Amino acid sequence: MDDKKVKEITDMEVDFAKWYTDVVLKAELIGYTSVKGCMVIRPYGYAIWENIQKILDGMFKQTGHENVCMPLFIPESLLQKEKDHIQGFAPEVAWVTMGGEEKLEERLCVRPTSETLFCDHYKNIVHSYRDLPKLYNQWCSVVRWEKTTRPFLRSREFLWQEGHTLHATEEEAVKETRQMLDIYANMCEEYLAMPVIKGEKTEKERFAGAKQTFTIEALMHDGKALQSGTSHYFGNGFAKAFDIQFTDKDNKLQNPFQTSWGVSTRLIGAIIMCHGDNSGLVLPPAVAPIQAVVIPVAAHKEGVKEKACELCERLSKVCRAKVDLSEQSPGWKYAEYEMKGVPVRIEIGPRDIENNCCVIARRDNGEKQTVQLCDLEQTVQKLLQDIRDNLYNKALLRREQMTYTARNKEEFKDIADNKPGFIKAMWCGDSECEEHIKEEIGVTSRCIPFNADKEHPGDTCVYCGKKAKHLLYFGKAY
Amino acid sequence: MDDKKVKEITDMEVDFAKWYTDVVLKAELIGYTSVKGCMVIRPYGYAIWENIQKILDGMFKQTGHENVCMPLFIPESLLQKEKDHIQGFAPEVAWVTMGGEEKLEERLCVRPTSETLFCDHYKNIVHSYRDLPKLYNQWCSVVRWEKTTRPFLRSREFLWQEGHTLHATEEEAVKETRQMLDIYANMCEEYLAMPVIKGEKTEKERFAGAKQTFTIEALMHDGKALQSGTSHYFGNGFAKAFDIQFTDKDNKLQNPFQTSWGVSTRLIGAIIMCHGDNSGLVLPPAVAPIQAVVIPVAAHKEGVKEKACELCERLSKVCRAKVDLSEQSPGWKYAEYEMKGVPVRIEIGPRDIENNCCVIARRDNGEKQTVQLCDLEQTVQKLLQDIRDNLYNKALLRREQMTYTARNKEEFKDIADNKPGFIKAMWCGDSECEEHIKEEIGVTSRCIPFNADKEHPGDTCVYCGKKAKHLLYFGKAY
Repeated sequence: MDDKKVKEITDMEVDFAKWYTDVVLKAELIGYTSVKGCMVIRPYGYAIWENIQKILDGMFKQTGHENVCMPLFIPESLLQKEKDHIQGFAPEVAWVTMGGEEKLEERLCVRPTSETLFCDHYKNIVHSYRDLPKLYNQWCSVVRWEKTTRPFLRSREFLWQEGHTLHATEEEAVKETRQMLDIYANMCEEYLAMPVIKGEKTEKERFAGAKQTFTIEALMHDGKALQSGTSHYFGNGFAKAFDIQFTDKDNKLQNPFQTSWGVSTRLIGAIIMCHGDNSGLVLPPAVAPIQAVVIPVAAHKEGVKEKACELCERLSKVCRAKVDLSEQSPGWKYAEYEMKGVPVRIEIGPRDIENNCCVIARRDNGEKQTVQLCDLEQTVQKLLQDIRDNLYNKALLRREQMTYTARNKEEFKDIADNKPGFIKAMWCGDSECEEHIKEEIGVTSRCIPFNADKEHPGDTCVYCGKKAKHLLYFGKAY
Repeated sequence: MDDKKVKEITDMEVDFAKWYTDVVLKAELIGYTSVKGCMVIRPYGYAIWENIQKILDGMFKQTGHENVCMPLFIPESLLQKEKDHIQGFAPEVAWVTMGGEEKLEERLCVRPTSETLFCDHYKNIVHSYRDLPKLYNQWCSVVRWEKTTRPFLRSREFLWQEGHTLHATEEEAVKETRQMLDIYANMCEEYLAMPVIKGEKTEKERFAGAKQTFTIEALMHDGKALQSGTSHYFGNGFAKAFDIQFTDKDNKLQNPFQTSWGVSTRLIGAIIMCHGDNSGLVLPPAVAPIQAVVIPVAAHKEGVKEKACELCERLSKVCRAKVDLSEQSPGWKYAEYEMKGVPVRIEIGPRDIENNCCVIARRDNGEKQTVQLCDLEQTVQKLLQDIRDNLYNKALLRREQMTYTARNKEEFKDIADNKPGFIKAMWCGDSECEEHIKEEIGVTSRCIPFNADKEHPGDTCVYCGKKAKHLLYFGKAY
């Protein structure tokens, strides 16, 4: 049984999808359940989410946001109040129709997102400019009845946070939207070591009911794009639909302006596919449940287990450390913690103890070094930072190598067919062209990057040849 | 509008239920929603829950428990696997019957509790004694389609944690059940300043499917009992129903033994009804979102706001402090933070600044003292501890004064009719007697206290007169 754990996983170059499934199962991140598309997030997977939560929640609170808890259920009539929103979500919600033995008078959907609930609440609590802004967030799960599902990437229930804010002015609301996107980008780049492209979604790809949707897009190991976080500006459309009004300083009634923004457990999928390799998971240190694992070698020899515990205790003061004293062989343990993506491994055996040193191995590049025990904490702390930097730089280099520019339709098709990655191309701004590109070339628009001014690979739309309006990133996406 | 906030609330002696509703609304703990029995937990209420979570989660992790996340939905067939369990819950679950436009092949219930989900998962991951124990917990919301609902006390959706553990031996499982009850009692007494009676539920009051249910019972201001946390021992009944087996050290197949335990946002209701008074909420310092609020007096005078901010900054290093610089009058603010139950208020005005002192007021007993500014932090820290102790002692004294002993049926009826509180009485152990007592006398059994040996108010059952088996606590309950 134990051997199963460390037996080889599918080669990611051979079958990336199967490699992914192998990793989520063998690293014990999830378990399947008897409901399709609903998973158990196991302790090791959930601990990664808890670390993500802790970092993000701190950032939210530091920027003045408060956590609240909205109900799980949305009455059908409430969901229908904003027309674009209901059109976007109605096909994919789960409906509660019975309470106990009784048929409900009105169907309730299990929230797919909570704009309507927040609006219903804001209507009751916002009356004056003094009540604004409202800067709310909630951590919860939502349900979307997807046809095709994959752990973390697309599941019928997933965990996320959804921020919902209300502002007196359009300017303030747009600023909030951008601020939260920056926070997401910072989370991804600094903590998850995953570079992202910040940009705006095209009209076609906007969130249902939004006036603008901003996004961060990351590139996975297989060259596919992953939308990793979004931030939406709603204008005052929801406020009008829900009759939210406030008296401004001049005593006039106004509709406030609204935003929402979210990231989900999808980020765990992103981590796996951005950093993982053929030995399994590779975790960015900031969110790794175990940052350093101490493994005794020849543990039956006198003093070895004790020394291993001592090192773990010392390390616990500077990072999340664990010692594994189980009866498995050191080789088994090495493979096990490699599979689980633990950033740093410390090996300590009788000869090391004699020489007052230990061996430290990095998960990201496999390098080993012998370190004097007096330098243990300092070395591990430095390594954790180095590993984050190396993961980030590797991912950035890969993205650069896998980002192509298409100047015309032929180039575009050729790249799309043969080169996985991002494709940059000029676009006329017409949703029809975008739709054609999707159908004919098989890639979707990811975003209009914020820094687009600097790049200008042509004046005409890559598809229709008309005057181009924007540089657009395209890709095959999860 | 602002005046509404601080206008008087219903006198608790006149109408305790209305007083309760006034407090939860005016202290901005909850908001009603358009779904009956589902509430918004507003930032101030949710912050109390976050503080409770943080303390409990630390205690759970310290005793080796890991957090996981189970799905929201339970297929009907899974819920039905354990017969007692389904009987207990079927009448009060919400059923999902549609996914998008399609009727589901099998109904899914929104989890009312997750024993069945944990069992389904354990079946897949537990095979050997080496896999045991499993010490899992999850923080989530659950749904029970109650007819009568009240914020925090009985709502259709509520937040809770549910621990679910699996053990190789009965002894270990029972020990776990008791350990978790002790953790709950410690949480209530030390952190929420609320004394509880620890004991075991009678067969009639047991959790559906449990072999033993342990409980902590608290007494509210109005003399009603509130079940504040429960811990269940399941034997191996669920394991058998779900076919969970492990190979023991002698290579024999065994069914493991199981527990579950939970506390919910009901604890917030308990805090309100245990400590609150006619000025509103009184929060135990350990979970108060704001532990000390600084209020400038004559804030327009030079240097007052600055000094108030300085004091707040100093206090922030030792507790959760806030300064209120809004344009409201000091009197309005005093009433506002009294309503919100902030334990300590600091008043600072021009004369105080001149004298290098400030005034500190306690929420629990209204006492005020003038304190030299150099003693600020120390005084506030000591006050927070004193307030916890005072709240606990007051609640304990009240419970003692409101606990009565009934030696026969007449006394029992008389107490039940005229004296709100706990009633201690001897009981024969027969569920029928218990049922009669409920119907005829209008009180339910709360628990057989753990320390029952010490007390012995008779040898015969208070109802039927037959030989008594246990001392039992009775009460009217929420």
